[in-house]
Amino acid sequence: MTLLHDNDTDSEKKACILATAERLFRDVGYLKTTVADIAKTLKMSPANIYRFFDSKKSIHEGVARRLMAEVEDAADAIAAKSNPPRERMHELLATVSIMNAERFVGDSKIHEMVAIAMEESWDVCDAHIQRIVTAIGTVIADGAKSGAFNVKDVELAAKCVCAGMLRFFHPQMIEQSAKKPGPSLDQMIDFIIAGLTLGTPDLSGGQR
Amino acid sequence: MTLLHDNDTDSEKKACILATAERLFRDVGYLKTTVADIAKTLKMSPANIYRFFDSKKSIHEGVARRLMAEVEDAADAIAAKSNPPRERMHELLATVSIMNAERFVGDSKIHEMVAIAMEESWDVCDAHIQRIVTAIGTVIADGAKSGAFNVKDVELAAKCVCAGMLRFFHPQMIEQSAKKPGPSLDQMIDFIIAGLTLGTPDLSGGQR
Repeated sequence: MTLLHDNDTDSEKKACILATAERLFRDVGYLKTTVADIAKTLKMSPANIYRFFDSKKSIHEGVARRLMAEVEDAADAIAAKSNPPRERMHELLATVSIMNAERFVGDSKIHEMVAIAMEESWDVCDAHIQRIVTAIGTVIADGAKSGAFNVKDVELAAKCVCAGMLRFFHPQMIEQSAKKPGPSLDQMIDFIIAGLTLGTPDLSGGQR
Repeated sequence: MTLLHDNDTDSEKKACILATAERLFRDVGYLKTTVADIAKTLKMSPANIYRFFDSKKSIHEGVARRLMAEVEDAADAIAAKSNPPRERMHELLATVSIMNAERFVGDSKIHEMVAIAMEESWDVCDAHIQRIVTAIGTVIADGAKSGAFNVKDVELAAKCVCAGMLRFFHPQMIEQSAKKPGPSLDQMIDFIIAGLTLGTPDLSGGQR
């Protein structure tokens, strides 16, 4: 068990509170976990927790942000690579889908944690989506420059890619689609990349 | 108010029960509506209703099937047209999205009705999705024949189109996305059609 030490820095303490909260949310459930439970597990007082987080909601947002940041960092790292844009796009989309499934899909307790984040902290989810769209846009921009993709409006194309991958990106859709017939992740990604390669009249500025 | 008459045929009586049930589900909510309520509204006995539907669940499925059939009929009618496949595909995808939004998105009572259908009667939803995929496949096959689309595996391409439109087809996604940034319906459809036009290596049988 992780315990806090007096000489831990504030940011170490915050990270420790979030790690403990995440474990309780996953094991016990978000709704059933109280700030007192988190404090007790860490052998500290609730008042001490409130020094770092003003509510259970902000702890929850902190947990969500931490998990989302892992996906964002991976997406950014792939976007910054120098391999061909089509290949890079494939890797980026597959990675986001797999990491989301690992982090945000599972039993009813994880489902509860994700549903509450989407209902009560949409701005946190939205900022995350924007980060992923930006990483996708970086690869599209590189592909547009090299001629691999035929796209004029990079931002719009990035939004279309993200929306087109919803079945494989959105936690609730991943869960709902898991046992349903449909394209595989690789087939879907190939289809999406084909859209970028030709470019649509609106995206590439041509006539319809 | 619609009332049953003694000389109505069985299929007229069934249609009347479903229309009344749908209205009550929308106005009062699915969970709060009992078979007795439906019977009372129709001035008939619950036993008489059970002659046609063995449970509230089968009434619910009947209501869902009726609403879905309207969308399927519209999709089939568009698929059977003879205008250019790209134009036809645009009309088909836009129509399904708009009809789904009209039927399955709205207040919490509609949300409840849809969520229960998806949880408890997935086979009904699945059959509906298959019908829409088939209509999309018809247009893709025509486009593949005419050269408008570069697709070898029509069924797989149809599944990719349907999955790619999830944000605009799935009731819960339509609702969740309504006020969120992202591509417009027309922009998304153009993007999806571009994927069909070029064809992906896997879909068209070429090299990656």
